[in-house]
Amino acid sequence: MKNFININDVVDYKSLVKQAIFLKNNSHAFKKIGENKILGMIFFNPSLRTRLSTLKAASLLGLNTMIMNFNNEGWNLEFEDQSIMSGDKAEHIKEAAKVISQYCDIIAIRAFATLTNKVDDEGEKIINSFLKYATVPVLNMESSIAHPLQALADAITIKENIKTSKPKVVLSWAPHPKALPHAVANSFVNMMKVTDYEFVIANPEGYNLNPEITQGIKVIYDQKKAFKNADFIYAKNWSSYDNYGKILLNDNSWLINTEKMELTNNAKFMHCLPVRRNVIVSDKVIDSDNSLVIQQANNRTYAAQIILKKMITNEK
Amino acid sequence: MKNFININDVVDYKSLVKQAIFLKNNSHAFKKIGENKILGMIFFNPSLRTRLSTLKAASLLGLNTMIMNFNNEGWNLEFEDQSIMSGDKAEHIKEAAKVISQYCDIIAIRAFATLTNKVDDEGEKIINSFLKYATVPVLNMESSIAHPLQALADAITIKENIKTSKPKVVLSWAPHPKALPHAVANSFVNMMKVTDYEFVIANPEGYNLNPEITQGIKVIYDQKKAFKNADFIYAKNWSSYDNYGKILLNDNSWLINTEKMELTNNAKFMHCLPVRRNVIVSDKVIDSDNSLVIQQANNRTYAAQIILKKMITNEK
Amino acid sequence: MKNFININDVVDYKSLVKQAIFLKNNSHAFKKIGENKILGMIFFNPSLRTRLSTLKAASLLGLNTMIMNFNNEGWNLEFEDQSIMSGDKAEHIKEAAKVISQYCDIIAIRAFATLTNKVDDEGEKIINSFLKYATVPVLNMESSIAHPLQALADAITIKENIKTSKPKVVLSWAPHPKALPHAVANSFVNMMKVTDYEFVIANPEGYNLNPEITQGIKVIYDQKKAFKNADFIYAKNWSSYDNYGKILLNDNSWLINTEKMELTNNAKFMHCLPVRRNVIVSDKVIDSDNSLVIQQANNRTYAAQIILKKMITNEK
Repeated sequence: MKNFININDVVDYKSLVKQAIFLKNNSHAFKKIGENKILGMIFFNPSLRTRLSTLKAASLLGLNTMIMNFNNEGWNLEFEDQSIMSGDKAEHIKEAAKVISQYCDIIAIRAFATLTNKVDDEGEKIINSFLKYATVPVLNMESSIAHPLQALADAITIKENIKTSKPKVVLSWAPHPKALPHAVANSFVNMMKVTDYEFVIANPEGYNLNPEITQGIKVIYDQKKAFKNADFIYAKNWSSYDNYGKILLNDNSWLINTEKMELTNNAKFMHCLPVRRNVIVSDKVIDSDNSLVIQQANNRTYAAQIILKKMITNEK
Repeated sequence: MKNFININDVVDYKSLVKQAIFLKNNSHAFKKIGENKILGMIFFNPSLRTRLSTLKAASLLGLNTMIMNFNNEGWNLEFEDQSIMSGDKAEHIKEAAKVISQYCDIIAIRAFATLTNKVDDEGEKIINSFLKYATVPVLNMESSIAHPLQALADAITIKENIKTSKPKVVLSWAPHPKALPHAVANSFVNMMKVTDYEFVIANPEGYNLNPEITQGIKVIYDQKKAFKNADFIYAKNWSSYDNYGKILLNDNSWLINTEKMELTNNAKFMHCLPVRRNVIVSDKVIDSDNSLVIQQANNRTYAAQIILKKMITNEK
Repeated sequence: MKNFININDVVDYKSLVKQAIFLKNNSHAFKKIGENKILGMIFFNPSLRTRLSTLKAASLLGLNTMIMNFNNEGWNLEFEDQSIMSGDKAEHIKEAAKVISQYCDIIAIRAFATLTNKVDDEGEKIINSFLKYATVPVLNMESSIAHPLQALADAITIKENIKTSKPKVVLSWAPHPKALPHAVANSFVNMMKVTDYEFVIANPEGYNLNPEITQGIKVIYDQKKAFKNADFIYAKNWSSYDNYGKILLNDNSWLINTEKMELTNNAKFMHCLPVRRNVIVSDKVIDSDNSLVIQQANNRTYAAQIILKKMITNEK
């Protein structure tokens, strides 16, 4: 694997999940593989799970790390070609990406959607600029429209908790006070598309995800109907895609609570975290034995570890 | 030792100090003990000595470290149970603590008192929440009301400079332009209570520390009287405890100067740093041969090293 | 080498450059030399190249690192003697430098000129205070008036690209929207003074560098005339030295473009980065095959590595 930008970079999803679970049980099996190599972690946005799980994964592979919080430790970057840089941007991505490539062996990038301009966000300005100019592999630690390490951790978690060969998985929109990006939902959808699972999306009208991503997926506007017979409920908020970056629904009608969970086939509850308690999901549901949120976060380590391993060794 | 939250977690103070001094002289004696383990350092407040001495201690034990500055790198945390998280708190401590526990083997926390609400501060909301929800040991790098790594470094320093079997140690309040927490003073008092030293506190009226902590300790409102025959003067400012978080005295009458030090038995001068020169203590006193402040800071490394060692090996 | 503060600390420039080029080709040749040692990196200003190249250099030598961003992770420092510290400065450099010295084996400092007070900037308050009070070697990662690691990387780059025994090197002022320090230009001049190269400076009137530094160097106010027969064009902006910290020229008349480069002897283009495209230099020039800017940045690693190696082993 050269770069890991989105779920499409995974050639064989089933094998990848299997290898990640092997690593989880043998986490020090490849502890010399990263020796003398450096992972550069570039943050344009806050991070808890991604930061720490990727650091742990690197540590498990003997990989050195260097962290750069671009917003307060570095320079403002210019991304436009041919611009006359007389404003507040001190450095062009062309130089930054080429230069950083010389100091590390893999560049990991976290750069959220701004939600102000759909074309810009879908253009993946930051991560694609790194891809274009960097001379070393690039790892996506959540970009404008994709969060594949999260989706891989989610796939591992479902695999660990599966009871039937074809479980029903529901991605359910849930409320949130702030406008959130589509990255986690997009990558989860893309991941589900390469599985054999029954997969449906439940969201309010006006909240359909990018139709190019959800093509062929059933979208249900009635949350309760969608929950019926579900084996996994994956909760996530996102802002409107059609009315880009807007919040259209402000009440708690889509909050996931016990009453709704009782409609399911004793479903497991999933969320990528951080989660707003009693806004996205009730305390009772997230604190129940069926909640997998902590396990999902743990699997972030092994998702990162298997991907870093493949990037280091350039395996498929 | 599972957690190290306050001085009461120390079973045998004398032995601990002795072991720390051994480490100071044999700092690489246990350089493999932390191998394949990770110390997560979580900062809610600034730190110089604590950050660097703990990093050095970890390095001396072969322990990997990951640092998280929660205020600018992570999410705002919610600590209240059953809250509807529709405000500015993006993540609940329940998830944060459980999740971080999966990425490291020890969690070290720095979270100062706010000095706005005594009940909250004494409840040690942040560190106690980590204690409650974390599934790995927790190390206190200064909480609202305790700074036991500092107190241990202070005990080591006194031990190294002791000339009589029962020295007189004076904890003296000193002026400061800002309202400061009670953590350092509290832990120093708790540490002195388990020694055989003669110990008195000198502070202005209105500045008595928490009476539960100072129970049985002589408190003197006359600084000069307290200094008589002292072997160690430990200077520290704290805001009022009764009139919680307030500054009651604004002049330099309690500044520690040569004239006052001359009342002592050629006492050593101590302070935890950072120190306001010519506000807390005169240049002449802190620059004198009797000043132990740099040695105290050095001993922070060995205090952290012995505690981390005991946490790693789960020794008492 | 004890400290590395400016180019004058280099005893034998030619040998140093040769050794750095050896390291570039044998970067893991001394990977155990830093074992059990710690490099403390103290930042008072942003940094990309310096941060990451120094981290990489340390990693190549097996040297542990600890980073401290003083502005948002630590305390405000007081540098004045005898001050009554009742304002916003929480710690005196005397304590800070002595204390940090106990936690690491080398202290690296980055502290830019403020450009508000020439005497203060030339006094190199921050780095000189560390030099005065630190008890371990000090490494300059760009101070008010010197950036010797950059100058060394530049010398390596010129050496790698030299075609004649006595190339003509031109340091050319170029426009910039913000007032910039003189550190890079100063150190480049000092480096050129110890070479056998033909060296001239081109800058607009009013932009002469400190005459003590440029003594004996030809300064030309006509950029085009200076470029004639040049083998290397080193572009850099700096604010006025005489009219300290001021911007006197606001147009693009000194921008380095193809037309000007055609006056040279097919010169290589150099800049320390970050660079403002189409303000300092046109896209066409910086993107041409003659541009060495990425190579310069790469050589920062080997400049840092050779200097750290000499500091660790205390070689000349």
